[in-house]
Order: sequence, then C-alpha cells, then structure tokens
Amino acid sequence: MNTDPAWMADVAFDDNGLIPAIAQDAENGQILMVAWMNREALAETAATGRAVYWSRSRQRLWRKGEESGHTQTVHDLRLDCDGDVVLLKVHQEGGIACHTGRASCFFRRLEGPAGSASWVTVDPVLKDPEHIYK
Amino acid sequence: MNTDPAWMADVAFDDNGLIPAIAQDAENGQILMVAWMNREALAETAATGRAVYWSRSRQRLWRKGEESGHTQTVHDLRLDCDGDVVLLKVHQEGGIACHTGRASCFFRRLEGPAGSASWVTVDPVLKDPEHIYK
Repeated sequence: MNTDPAWMADVAFDDNGLIPAIAQDAENGQILMVAWMNREALAETAATGRAVYWSRSRQRLWRKGEESGHTQTVHDLRLDCDGDVVLLKVHQEGGIACHTGRASCFFRRLEGPAGSASWVTVDPVLKDPEHIYK
Repeated sequence: MNTDPAWMADVAFDDNGLIPAIAQDAENGQILMVAWMNREALAETAATGRAVYWSRSRQRLWRKGEESGHTQTVHDLRLDCDGDVVLLKVHQEGGIACHTGRASCFFRRLEGPAGSASWVTVDPVLKDPEHIYK
C-alpha cells in the first residue's frame, strides 16, 4: 500500500530513490549546505518542520542536528520546475550548518586565473568541531 | 594527457562524471536554478566567467542563455566541504533563469498540512516563454 501523501507524486527521485536538497538560511539567504533526501526523509521533513536527510555514507535517516544540536527549522519547502531538486529555507540553530564548524559548507572560493587558480578557504570556523561533536 | 587545471582535482564528480551546480543571484541571494556540470563545463565556466552546464537531456554542453539570451555572469565560484557540489553567484541577464519565464526555477511551495498539502505556484511568470525561445 502506498501511503505517500499526494504531493509526493510530483517529486522526481533519482534512480537511487534520492533527491538533492538545498538548505538556505531563511534570514540572510546564505546557502548553507546540500544533502540528499529519500521519500521518508522528505515526508518527515514536511510533517515535522525539521530538516531530515538521507545519509548516503551511513545509509540511514539523518535528522540534522541529532549529534551537533544544529537543527534546521523549515520555514519554506520548494520544488523546482523539473521536480528533481528541493529547496528548504531554514532557521539554522547555532548558526552552523557545516561539520567543519562553519556557517556554510561552501567556504572554498576559486581564486586566480582559471589555469592556475586554487580553492581558497574564505569563511571562518565559528566553533571547533571537537566541541560540536562531543 | 590530462590537461585539467590543478584545482579540478578537488572536485568530486559522480559516477556519471557530473556535479550539481547551484546558481544563486549575486545581488539578492535568490536561488535561481540547479543544473549539472561535467569537467568541460566547469572548466569553461571558470575560464570564461559565463555559466556553462551539461545538458543531461541533450547530452551536450549548454551555454546558459545560448537560446534565451538569459546568460549568467559568474561573480563567485565555490565548492562545498565534500567537493561534490558547486555554487555559482551570478548576475542573471534579463532577471529570468527558468525556462517557464520565471526568475527562479523554485516557484512551487508546499502549502497546507503535510498529509494533504500541495505544491502551489507562488512566483509570477515575468515573460511568456514563447517570446523567450523564438
């Protein structure tokens, strides 16, 4: 029996049953991270208003913040025109989304002429990860 | 012979040789779209400062705006902590990224209680697609 809510039919999961999910800070628009969701993660996110992802490395649901305390409260859940990416506008508890202790996972910027450019870390660590994951 | 620039080694392409790329409006922070890049698309984007994607449906390079005129000038190119998503901060020519004629592809919002919610179109069409793709 299919117990999916009707709106799930518009979501185009990939061959692995996953869809990329972008978390954007609802307050300042910063893109915090991208993770993956399966049906169960997306359904729980919609039902609870807390971001839940599917951890590909651990092969289980990942309730964001379950270890770090850095939960994400979802204010807005959107789907793109192809139905194959979701966007969450969230309040990021603690102001830290990245496991490195930074606000955002996108802390490396390509700098220099394309042929000899390099990725430069441009955002600060806000909290030592050793103190996040105790 | 590998002619990739050195910075390409930090980019984790998937099994299909692709990486998701988020385009964010550099001026107002709006997330415009998500598309895919292969090595060639990413290299050309970095070299030219214009967003170039890989069209999975057409299986060829897609120089954004080549038909619509809605090019994207890249102001900032970032890589996430896992190296498997890139973020472009762009100036969106014409203010329209989506093929539906909207500013952003993320124009559908989930509204209502999770069990009976639906995707509601909340952003306006700025230009009739028939007038974009002549």
